[in-house]
This record gives sequence, structure tokens and C-alpha cells, in this order.
Amino acid sequence: VLDRNKRMADAIREDLRRRGCFMVNIIGSPGCGKTRLLVELLALIGGGISCAVIEGDLATDNDAQRIRKTGVDAFQVMTGAACHLSARDIEHALEHLSIQPKTLVLVENVGNLVCPSMFDIGESLRIVCLSVTEGTDKPQKYPVSFREADLAVITKSDLAPYVDFDMEACREMISRIKPDLPFLVTSAKDGSGLKELIDRIVAAWRDKQVATD
Amino acid sequence: VLDRNKRMADAIREDLRRRGCFMVNIIGSPGCGKTRLLVELLALIGGGISCAVIEGDLATDNDAQRIRKTGVDAFQVMTGAACHLSARDIEHALEHLSIQPKTLVLVENVGNLVCPSMFDIGESLRIVCLSVTEGTDKPQKYPVSFREADLAVITKSDLAPYVDFDMEACREMISRIKPDLPFLVTSAKDGSGLKELIDRIVAAWRDKQVATD
Repeated sequence: VLDRNKRMADAIREDLRRRGCFMVNIIGSPGCGKTRLLVELLALIGGGISCAVIEGDLATDNDAQRIRKTGVDAFQVMTGAACHLSARDIEHALEHLSIQPKTLVLVENVGNLVCPSMFDIGESLRIVCLSVTEGTDKPQKYPVSFREADLAVITKSDLAPYVDFDMEACREMISRIKPDLPFLVTSAKDGSGLKELIDRIVAAWRDKQVATD
Repeated sequence: VLDRNKRMADAIREDLRRRGCFMVNIIGSPGCGKTRLLVELLALIGGGISCAVIEGDLATDNDAQRIRKTGVDAFQVMTGAACHLSARDIEHALEHLSIQPKTLVLVENVGNLVCPSMFDIGESLRIVCLSVTEGTDKPQKYPVSFREADLAVITKSDLAPYVDFDMEACREMISRIKPDLPFLVTSAKDGSGLKELIDRIVAAWRDKQVATD
């Protein structure tokens, strides 16, 4: 299963690259603020970059609806009982979205800090999100999600005063798991870190395009 | 796999029942506050009931260590890549804990609102936890966890003033998924709802013992 998924993911990645597109896979626990982060990122990007969103959930198309309100096209994958998105889900979603050349495809995976880490969906950048309300020791407890990520994003930093979260200890834990993993602190509510996050995504896109052109 | 797991779970349940014990399976997202809830429940129970705890995590024995500080015996199952506890994990853990007759066995499952719902571990009461920081629509998005639970516990109610969480809308969503599912609002930080939660667990234990004696 993993082998077949990997082959399909490679084909998706290559197809997107040829069209100048770039796919980001966003992973994190239920309720860590992935959708809200996406909504605010899209608002900040405005018309600057052509974007499309793929939403993964077990049930409901609530998230795709929230995204569409920003004016960006979104496709909702409902996985039923499946705890992660697969490359096949993405292939199906891409058929339904009319992706223009040079589009940034943002994928919100099923809320789960475990299973989605095992499945390549054809992305070129994988972001793992962790909200300050989840507690400092989560990287230690879910190491695979961090090891397999290209960027760690701390969300809901506005709530830090109300919870026991030690940002420095968390950063240290992450660096023990993957020393070179970049680390960004954000709040979709007060906007902090969002501009930097967009810059990082765009820089990764540019680097990938240069490396493979 | 599910069939074999179910048979083993039934055997565990029956064995615990014969010894007057009762097992509770606590499910919820990473960082929804399951461990903290357990720590405060154990403090409140004090010596009143003999307790033992089984902790499930992919990695680290942080949680078992936290529990042992309360004076209660705890066994840590490290699942590696597995996203849920199985009946076999519990069988193994029970061999390592010396369970006295009439012990309340509290199991904290791997932080995951999806996969643990599919696996009976031999519990007689299943609790699904949802923290107010995760957002109102989680029951709708993870219906199986709520459908398969015997009790829904809202955690971190002390943070409600700082986040957008609509308690009544959440309660309504849950009742649409499972109309008779009891619903308790708790905060491990300020202690609200904890006494009621213990009372419910003890009542369920008593009912089960009466029903099967």
C-alpha cells in the first residue's frame, strides 16, 4: 500500500512541478488551528499568488466552505473512517479543482498527529502544526510527525499567556528530533508570524523550481 | 485483526469483572488534557478507591511518570508507530501492573480522535474528551469517536473565555450524533466537573457489576 501510494505521490509531484505548481501538506492535531491559519494566510496572500485548497476530514465539508468564503477554490475530501489523506485522494481532488499553472496548492490533512505522517501525498513542503494549548512535550511524544516535516509551525501563540507552554523547551525538543527543522511561531488571531510563513513557503517553492528546472 | 482484537477485549473485560475491577478507556486528541485530567481525578479520589493507570503513547514515558507522582501505579505502553492501543497492549500492561480486586483501571489512549475509536480494549466505559480550544465543530468532524463513546467530557473549560467555543452548539452536535450520550463540562485547572465525573464513573461501575452479578 505504501509503495503504491509513494509512486502515485511522485507522479503528482512531477506533474505539478511541470506546471509550475507547488503543493504544501499541512499536518496537525484536530483543532490545532489549521483551517483558521489557512483562512488568514489566503487573506494575506490576496490575489498575489493563485491558490487552491484541498481539505481532508472524516466527515463534513465545513472546512472547504470556510475556505471558499475567502474567494479561493477548495475541494473537500471526506475520508469516512480513514485517518489520513492518500495520494489517490489528492489525485481525485486535483481532477475536481481546475488548477491554473503556477498555483500554490495548500492541503489540510485530516486532524491527526500520527497517521498522516506516514503518507506522501505528492507535496513538496510538509508543515507540522502544534498549538500552544497542546502542551510542550508533544514533539517528544509524536516524533515521527516532526522528523518527517520540513517546517514546524507553532499556532495560537496568542493563547500562550493562559496555558503552560514553554516555547524554548519545545524548540529544543524539536531540534533534538530534527536539528535543522525550521521553527515559526504564529497566531492566526493576531497575525503574528503569518507573513514569515508565506515568505518561507514561497522561498521553498522557488528553490524547488530552480533545483529541478 | 479487528475480530481477534474483539475476542481478546471480551476476555479482558470478563476477567476484570470477575475480580470486581472496572476499566475506563479515555480517548481524545493530542494535548486535549487527558493526562492532566487523570492526575486531578486521582488526587480527588485519594485513597478512596484502588486505582491503576495504563498510558498509551507513541514514544516517551512522560505520562506514566506524571501519574506515578500521584502515588498511583502506572504502566506506559509505547506503541512506536501505532496510532491506538490494542487489546493485546492492555493484556501486556495488566500483566505488569499488580491489579488488586476492585481496582479502577484508567487507560489513557494514544492522542488521536480517529483510530482508537475502532479498537475495543476491554473497557466497560469509554470516555471521549474534547477541549474547548479545539473548536465547536469537532463532534461533527469526528463523529465515530462520539458515536462509540459512553460519555463526552469537555476539558479546559477555564480557557473558554479566550477562545471561540460555543458550548450549547457543541452539545447539540453531540446529541445529533448520539442523542443519549451524557455530556460533562470540566476543567482540570479549576476543578469544575471533576467530582461529577468521578460520580459517573463509579455509578457506571456499580451498574455494570449489578447487571452481571
